[in-house]
Amino acid sequence: MKIDKILLDHGSGGKMSHQLITDMILPIFDNPMLEVLHDGAIFDIAKQRMAFSTDTYVVDPIFFPGGSIGKLAVNGTVNDLAMCGAAPLYLSAGLIIEEGLSLTDLGKILKDMALAAEKANVKVVTGDTKVVPKGAVDKIFVNTSGIGLIPRQVDISSHRARPGDKVIISGSIADHGMTVLTQREGMIFNSPVISDTAPLNHMVTKMLAAHKDIHVLRDPTRGGVGTALNEIAGKSGVGIKIYEEKVPLKKEIAGICELLGFDPFYVANEGKLIAFVAPDYAEKVLAAIRADEFGQDACIIGEAIVDNPGKVIMQTSIGGSRIVDMLTGEQLPRIC
Amino acid sequence: MKIDKILLDHGSGGKMSHQLITDMILPIFDNPMLEVLHDGAIFDIAKQRMAFSTDTYVVDPIFFPGGSIGKLAVNGTVNDLAMCGAAPLYLSAGLIIEEGLSLTDLGKILKDMALAAEKANVKVVTGDTKVVPKGAVDKIFVNTSGIGLIPRQVDISSHRARPGDKVIISGSIADHGMTVLTQREGMIFNSPVISDTAPLNHMVTKMLAAHKDIHVLRDPTRGGVGTALNEIAGKSGVGIKIYEEKVPLKKEIAGICELLGFDPFYVANEGKLIAFVAPDYAEKVLAAIRADEFGQDACIIGEAIVDNPGKVIMQTSIGGSRIVDMLTGEQLPRIC
Repeated sequence: MKIDKILLDHGSGGKMSHQLITDMILPIFDNPMLEVLHDGAIFDIAKQRMAFSTDTYVVDPIFFPGGSIGKLAVNGTVNDLAMCGAAPLYLSAGLIIEEGLSLTDLGKILKDMALAAEKANVKVVTGDTKVVPKGAVDKIFVNTSGIGLIPRQVDISSHRARPGDKVIISGSIADHGMTVLTQREGMIFNSPVISDTAPLNHMVTKMLAAHKDIHVLRDPTRGGVGTALNEIAGKSGVGIKIYEEKVPLKKEIAGICELLGFDPFYVANEGKLIAFVAPDYAEKVLAAIRADEFGQDACIIGEAIVDNPGKVIMQTSIGGSRIVDMLTGEQLPRIC
Repeated sequence: MKIDKILLDHGSGGKMSHQLITDMILPIFDNPMLEVLHDGAIFDIAKQRMAFSTDTYVVDPIFFPGGSIGKLAVNGTVNDLAMCGAAPLYLSAGLIIEEGLSLTDLGKILKDMALAAEKANVKVVTGDTKVVPKGAVDKIFVNTSGIGLIPRQVDISSHRARPGDKVIISGSIADHGMTVLTQREGMIFNSPVISDTAPLNHMVTKMLAAHKDIHVLRDPTRGGVGTALNEIAGKSGVGIKIYEEKVPLKKEIAGICELLGFDPFYVANEGKLIAFVAPDYAEKVLAAIRADEFGQDACIIGEAIVDNPGKVIMQTSIGGSRIVDMLTGEQLPRIC
């Protein structure tokens, strides 16, 4: 079947997103910085390496346990810059507001943005506000773009995973996606389910202080850990072996995933990072992550290997192994 | 009446927009760079002055005579940077696409963006694509953010108009707003009505080559020339005297404005700039504007004066004078 329309799957962060970007967008813009497809573009200005990143937030509902579209919008772009190894400096904020949104809700969102910016130590320095007639947008969408400075000798890229590298994750997976989904559907559970949205730039600073040569950093947002690892395996040309039982997953999140039929490996996170680090200093970097308030449950979940280049292999808890493929379609629209 | 909801008027670029920004947004973010309320933020990185700007485009329809939402999104942010005196360098593109948009339309929009970027000599280096379910956004909205470099000795700001400065406009007014409106309403006229969307950065380069000390630059988009001049009068604490008969206005646009009851002074432009320039080199700068392909109809339309500080006074063609106030509400939603 020839596809001639945009489908929700095109926004999944999975295979169809990649096809759209690779087959349609990249050939049109045709420039090497965009082609890297990093979380941000990296370039030199006045001999200073800089990162520049953009993200639009369309999460539904706009308030959820642990955060709001405002907090998410600031943390998300802060994290995209941090994943380039950059210290985030300045953000822009572009609001698209539906006519009729209450000023109380708008005020809460803006305050969440300001608080998140303070916590991440970035400044919102420029903005734009559009109001559209009722029905032209659902409540409010927020774009944030940001710039940051990359310290000398830091070279972080999804292409740099090497066989032997340890794979570190900074904490439990799937919290954000399952929180937003269950909140949207009005589901109530005994145990609290809370988004993990958090700024990761201070954690990255600590990691780089422990060792300058972090190979890869990724925040597994849309598409989850499964998609992020597949991208890294593909770009670096390595296999990635993950031990299922080592991956931190909260009991209540595991239960909800099972109940609703979601694989937590493909569910979005908003306050976690994956790092690929050479084995001789992996423990040192791990300790640095654990010293951060958002990295206390960090652990090593696997390693990059020579075999199966481009593939992610999961060693399951019952002793078998399976390939963790890239997601084709959209599991969860409007999760971020 | 206490207003507790967002109204379309809050997005007008006029008085209510200013109130929203000044009373609500600025106190929450509370930082001096944002408070300048320029088209972009200006700061130093590695001793290099830079400008950073963002804008979201929600124009309806997405294609119109003379352009599309894609062309508008690139030119708009290029122009915001140029109005800071910056040479635009890199852009980001954030797309929010409604499920069901045809890939043909998306392709056209992306090609328009790439062509516009080439024409302006900027690179789109980072991007983000979100797809939302049908009804959550109207077809496609595009955010562009951009960074640019400000040459040494250039100091352009809405605060810098001085009594005696000549007010230059780079061409005819109200073309963009009336084109989009009539296109949206399906009106057909004998004479072609075409948006003026264009990159103004090359024009600004020529102006700065003619004289480094341009005082003020503004592109009169939302709210039109009337609102832009009021902002400049307020920030610089000068009066501004405009000679109505000198303001370039195409006959067909004047006719449509009259027919539909719009004041062309408040209608958006997307390829025009207003400059405030000291009288002794105003003619030289004017000649530089006219040398640009988008500035051939440029002319001097008035001057900054000591009297009536903060006010814009129009000398009408029949010999009287009237105050051109800032627009309170929204004339035309979704024009850019």
